[in-house]
Amino acid sequence: MKKISKVDLSIKELVDLIQEDFLKTNNLIIDQISSEVDRIPELSKHIINLGGKRLRPILTIACAKMLGIKNNDHITLAAAVELLHTATLLHDDVVDESDFRRGKKTSHILWDNKSSILVGDYLLGKAFQLMVKTGSLECLKILSNAAAVIAEGEVLQLVAINNIDIKESDYMKIIEAKTAALFSSACEVGGIASSSSGETRKSLFSFGKNLGTAFQLTDDALDYSGSSDRLGKNIGDDFYDGKITLPVIIAYREGEEEQRNFWVDSFNKAERNPEDLDKANHLINQNEAIEKTLNLANNYGKKAKRDLSKFPDTPIKTGLINLVDFSSIRDH
Amino acid sequence: MKKISKVDLSIKELVDLIQEDFLKTNNLIIDQISSEVDRIPELSKHIINLGGKRLRPILTIACAKMLGIKNNDHITLAAAVELLHTATLLHDDVVDESDFRRGKKTSHILWDNKSSILVGDYLLGKAFQLMVKTGSLECLKILSNAAAVIAEGEVLQLVAINNIDIKESDYMKIIEAKTAALFSSACEVGGIASSSSGETRKSLFSFGKNLGTAFQLTDDALDYSGSSDRLGKNIGDDFYDGKITLPVIIAYREGEEEQRNFWVDSFNKAERNPEDLDKANHLINQNEAIEKTLNLANNYGKKAKRDLSKFPDTPIKTGLINLVDFSSIRDH
Repeated sequence: MKKISKVDLSIKELVDLIQEDFLKTNNLIIDQISSEVDRIPELSKHIINLGGKRLRPILTIACAKMLGIKNNDHITLAAAVELLHTATLLHDDVVDESDFRRGKKTSHILWDNKSSILVGDYLLGKAFQLMVKTGSLECLKILSNAAAVIAEGEVLQLVAINNIDIKESDYMKIIEAKTAALFSSACEVGGIASSSSGETRKSLFSFGKNLGTAFQLTDDALDYSGSSDRLGKNIGDDFYDGKITLPVIIAYREGEEEQRNFWVDSFNKAERNPEDLDKANHLINQNEAIEKTLNLANNYGKKAKRDLSKFPDTPIKTGLINLVDFSSIRDH
Repeated sequence: MKKISKVDLSIKELVDLIQEDFLKTNNLIIDQISSEVDRIPELSKHIINLGGKRLRPILTIACAKMLGIKNNDHITLAAAVELLHTATLLHDDVVDESDFRRGKKTSHILWDNKSSILVGDYLLGKAFQLMVKTGSLECLKILSNAAAVIAEGEVLQLVAINNIDIKESDYMKIIEAKTAALFSSACEVGGIASSSSGETRKSLFSFGKNLGTAFQLTDDALDYSGSSDRLGKNIGDDFYDGKITLPVIIAYREGEEEQRNFWVDSFNKAERNPEDLDKANHLINQNEAIEKTLNLANNYGKKAKRDLSKFPDTPIKTGLINLVDFSSIRDH
């Protein structure tokens, strides 16, 4: 049986506080994927069930409820955020040629690339339809920006693949775009659903961005050091995919010439094997690259908590703080 | 040298009437595809240059100018419509595995599927950013609906591939979704940019829908009977791709048993060869399927012209009428 991680427990704690709205959001998502064309609900349900934690809509709902909601816009926006995220997951799995997600076969394996591309487009259209329903041009602005930024980050990641010379600043740009942008948008639109003012919205945006960055850095560290409780990816996925993440950037930067040659050779090869991964892990440990990556994640986590400090102490705020703590540590 | 078709001449006639706004729209599109990530402008420019006629943004501008514009929203919306269309073209070429578009190599051949998918997503995000700039929730509603409907139509087409038993009504649904929906939206948002009222908007929507349907039916007919002036596709593309279009549906429905067996066998095969296409063309001619398809296109063209009848006679209206005439006849 799978151990439940602390980050999952902290998410469960948050969900317990927003239970009713969380269920309404899930139902709204299911409503949106209905279509006379059977493949659309079938494939959508599969990816949505694999999607996992629902972290982004939870953030929208939690931020909104922390600040006081006025109607059901936070639910509509949470569902839009999750549909936007789901669309990017479908396209990512095609682009990354990932056969598995959270231990289950991905949609493009069960159906085909074509279906995953087109159903992703459908979900993106539905996400924007939902945003329009709230009548909030501000939310539409934030989330259309996020959609463009996420795609731009994915292209940047694609062209940087196998490029061991990537600058740390470019790597940070990638994770800011592909992960942090939707976290920050999810939080900010939650604020808008609470009629929050400029400063509050800025804090929410910053909170989401810092949490998202901490989350992605931890994820990248765990790809080389994770334990069995880390669902969703297999150890070494990034390495096998040729994705250069911070642990590798650090190990390459700090390593001796022979070590640097190993990294260059490994990422120049068309494929990397388990033996390569063993050596990679060894060099990453030797250069304390995991520790350094997690330290950086921890710094972003601290910033995220600072962003929350101005808000009144409520159970939801405590839940968000716990989520930050466990997102940037995650059982390591 | 390529002969200029009458439909191209009628488009040129319209463009001459809206020259300045057409150039502004093109410039705005170029602005939108700029990015620090070089692959984005490179790949985008390639597909936009291949995109061809710019029929959809021309419709937005022409409808707006026919009714009197108030600011530059029609330009912003025309650019958004073209970006949305370009995003779908990128994804379509991946899904259809098309190696050529208008005689040039497609983006996913020059770069790769991954880039085409992600740059398509980027252009979709940019399209929505532009719509937000107009501040018109109505336009956002119309175009987000169109985005979902187009994707739904593409999935329907995908699951219907090689299905010779497709009903004519399902085929009409596909072309209504994948082609007519964006034509009608392009015209309607043009009306909104002119502060048009409910009835006028309805007429514009209906005009676009009927024109788009006529356009697609003619396109489907020309796939079996086109001449060299029909740029963009090769004769028999639909047949080789296993797409069942109206000429085939008619020939299958009206054919004798031996003929029907040919159609079943052809579309059950993994690939169809030039000899199959010859036979297909023969049966299509024998059953007058091209003539019947073009007659239907002509009926939709008549409806489109009726939709325009209530508008005051202006050179732009005449240009739109000529466009209808040549779209539903197209040198046949």
